[in-house]
Amino acid sequence: MDRERAAFEAGIKLGALYHQFVGTPLSLDTIRGLERAIEESVSLQPYVESVKVRIDEGRVRERLNKFGYCELEGVMLEVDLVIRYDGLIVRAGMREENGYPLMFLKEIREK
Amino acid sequence: MDRERAAFEAGIKLGALYHQFVGTPLSLDTIRGLERAIEESVSLQPYVESVKVRIDEGRVRERLNKFGYCELEGVMLEVDLVIRYDGLIVRAGMREENGYPLMFLKEIREK
Amino acid sequence: MDRERAAFEAGIKLGALYHQFVGTPLSLDTIRGLERAIEESVSLQPYVESVKVRIDEGRVRERLNKFGYCELEGVMLEVDLVIRYDGLIVRAGMREENGYPLMFLKEIREK
Amino acid sequence: MDRERAAFEAGIKLGALYHQFVGTPLSLDTIRGLERAIEESVSLQPYVESVKVRIDEGRVRERLNKFGYCELEGVMLEVDLVIRYDGLIVRAGMREENGYPLMFLKEIREK
Repeated sequence: MDRERAAFEAGIKLGALYHQFVGTPLSLDTIRGLERAIEESVSLQPYVESVKVRIDEGRVRERLNKFGYCELEGVMLEVDLVIRYDGLIVRAGMREENGYPLMFLKEIREK
Repeated sequence: MDRERAAFEAGIKLGALYHQFVGTPLSLDTIRGLERAIEESVSLQPYVESVKVRIDEGRVRERLNKFGYCELEGVMLEVDLVIRYDGLIVRAGMREENGYPLMFLKEIREK
Repeated sequence: MDRERAAFEAGIKLGALYHQFVGTPLSLDTIRGLERAIEESVSLQPYVESVKVRIDEGRVRERLNKFGYCELEGVMLEVDLVIRYDGLIVRAGMREENGYPLMFLKEIREK
Repeated sequence: MDRERAAFEAGIKLGALYHQFVGTPLSLDTIRGLERAIEESVSLQPYVESVKVRIDEGRVRERLNKFGYCELEGVMLEVDLVIRYDGLIVRAGMREENGYPLMFLKEIREK
């Protein structure tokens, strides 16, 4: 059940990052810093080989309120995650699709 | 890749519930209500067949502050989750083990 | 500085509830349960005399995704909060105004 | 009611930052980055003149799990916040006291 366990670990990380960080105040100027903070927090977790987080600048701009900031929403996130578990590599991620923040498995292969 | 996808979906739900609800103020009197609210929110998500959440009363009692409440911590949670994905049933969950809130896959089988 | 301290306590509770619960999956069927869970968690905190939470059903309906649920957003929340601090009563709350989830102080008076 | 409103705004920011970021995975190596990310997100909010966040390294070290990380807890946080509202300056903050993450008002004065 190693392949399933590896995929399970990928799911945990995506669900966790989403619900930890959605709601965080951000602006165009703080996108990079928040992306890095999310990446650092995900990278610490077990079996994470690498993670890349991008926050959609266009969507942030659209959502800015009169005070010049907005809150992080799921559909702003684009994530590429690589999990390494017991000789397996899982590629998974997250991106907006038809207005829904879709999480997906891309590939599982032996290292 | 259906088995892996099914396991991935289980992981998403556990990671999400953890990071959504950890930090919620609770007391001995509100344990049941919070368990139900967590179950209801998880049940709405795609592919969730059922979910059972228990919050450890003993740990809540240990953590109560002088105001008579504490905050939900991962190690207080015991979760049984059933995912149904494309003819497959996944059983997964979460419980404290050696002080760590462990998430685990129990079984994947055809419905 | 009692009046200011009483108002400060009201602010803490509103900021906390917002960032604890925004992002929670909900549907039309789980609105009542989530309102109660939020009220119970706020009521536990120091100096809270009472709290009433309403989640806007119309906005929930508008946001439902293809799976029949959405996530709690700040603008869906309407909150009436009463703080009692050292002989003072503070009335404060939160509601959507021009698309922004506004938190406001209504009244501070002696009990 | 300007002084009370200014204090209310300080409370909102402290309650919000607490419940947004508690639960975030962190290690000794990511403390600085997380402090900065929290400061940046608070600084965006209305009436924030400045904010300084420190995460207690000793407590992080004590809580590290076998994977070398832990989760942000309220008692790890030390925050100094300055709010400017309508000609008033409020100094407020948060620090651990007797095991409880205490939020406090320090001073309100005219600018």
